[in-house]
Amino acid sequence: MRYKLTLQYDGGRYHGWQKQPHERMTVQAAVEDAVSRVTGAPTVVTASGRTDEGVHALGQVAHFDSDKPLPTVRYVAAINHWLPCDIRVTACEVAPDSFDARKSAKRKTYAYRMYVGETENPLRRTRETFIGNADVKKMDEAARLFVGAHDFRAFMSSGSSAKTTVREIYAAGVTEENGSVVFRVTGNGFLYNTVRIMAGALIRIGRGGKSEIENALGSGDRRLVPDIAPPEGLYLESVEYPETV
Amino acid sequence: MRYKLTLQYDGGRYHGWQKQPHERMTVQAAVEDAVSRVTGAPTVVTASGRTDEGVHALGQVAHFDSDKPLPTVRYVAAINHWLPCDIRVTACEVAPDSFDARKSAKRKTYAYRMYVGETENPLRRTRETFIGNADVKKMDEAARLFVGAHDFRAFMSSGSSAKTTVREIYAAGVTEENGSVVFRVTGNGFLYNTVRIMAGALIRIGRGGKSEIENALGSGDRRLVPDIAPPEGLYLESVEYPETV
Repeated sequence: MRYKLTLQYDGGRYHGWQKQPHERMTVQAAVEDAVSRVTGAPTVVTASGRTDEGVHALGQVAHFDSDKPLPTVRYVAAINHWLPCDIRVTACEVAPDSFDARKSAKRKTYAYRMYVGETENPLRRTRETFIGNADVKKMDEAARLFVGAHDFRAFMSSGSSAKTTVREIYAAGVTEENGSVVFRVTGNGFLYNTVRIMAGALIRIGRGGKSEIENALGSGDRRLVPDIAPPEGLYLESVEYPETV
Repeated sequence: MRYKLTLQYDGGRYHGWQKQPHERMTVQAAVEDAVSRVTGAPTVVTASGRTDEGVHALGQVAHFDSDKPLPTVRYVAAINHWLPCDIRVTACEVAPDSFDARKSAKRKTYAYRMYVGETENPLRRTRETFIGNADVKKMDEAARLFVGAHDFRAFMSSGSSAKTTVREIYAAGVTEENGSVVFRVTGNGFLYNTVRIMAGALIRIGRGGKSEIENALGSGDRRLVPDIAPPEGLYLESVEYPETV
């Protein structure tokens, strides 16, 4: 039987999602450990994609297989019992065998959270990125340039194994929400570090810098958008799947 | 010369404000270490009052004396340079010699932050208290009973050295703010653990429990309000002083 999990985590303590050698603490290792204790057998848990070191998730999706006939509501409680308190399962559903958390994913939404002010706030430090001051309207106008099908190779760190660098962005914008400045972007997929490089370009524009977004999308030149915004502001908000898998 | 400092901190890593033996990590020890490096001499920093282990501050006030003739804006940057990143100085002003951060304080405002939902959110865990569900209107009505001059000995943990247990509360209420439930209370002073015991009583009422607040204020019986809400939801928001000190 295949199960679909929805997960939230505070990425602060973890070296990202993906399991690593040398016992480095990762979200995947913690989730597989908890799920394996519940299923009673070593169980692989596959997520919709990696999140980097320090990146958070509000709606990561993953799947695993098990023959243990537990009701899904019992799975939620049992897995949470074994998870560290900075990772929580919020839902567990039986999924068809054709469902694959990574391959079936159709859309992902990320949020990048920032705050303005005169000084850094130690209580927002691990959750949002301090950007001093920002012209939110300019940032929003610039963010909308990402919408559409583009070659995003200028917005990619090296080390990516992606076959193609073309992705389609369905929505992108910057808004003020409850005292935070939030860049939210939905697409059919993202290359390595793309959202953080997009956020880095927007922060520069918000501070009065010239927008190089159109030039970077046109030329593919990474040097036009050199900033990578720090990981603590980034949240994987949701992953969407077609209804039929 | 006497200086007034305004401080913010994330109390999560600290054993409260007050310096302790055996090198336990406290906010006071960290601030005195930073200030002493700047003044060039061992410097005592006195706060408006202690905050407990795990409690946060958005507007703690403290004072120290120094003969080092630095402009106050330089003091802010220099002290922040030496502080750990979960403690920040937001302001430094020259104060009259009669100013004493503890003795001159006239009003303090605390906020206790909570959130409702079906499951705990790992990203809110160290900042707000999860309370499942809550009747915010009932909590607000109950909180208003604290307003006025009352004997708060029922709302006090043992270990307090207060001479009198009568305090005056100027404002108290519970509101919904951006998806959080916030109990905010302003008074001329608070006994040991009072705000957390108030919050514990309000959480019980919000979940459908009978209000024992009037009985506890009248009788002084601690057993009527047995809950102490956890420290991570509590914030010292501001301390006010008369204009003339």
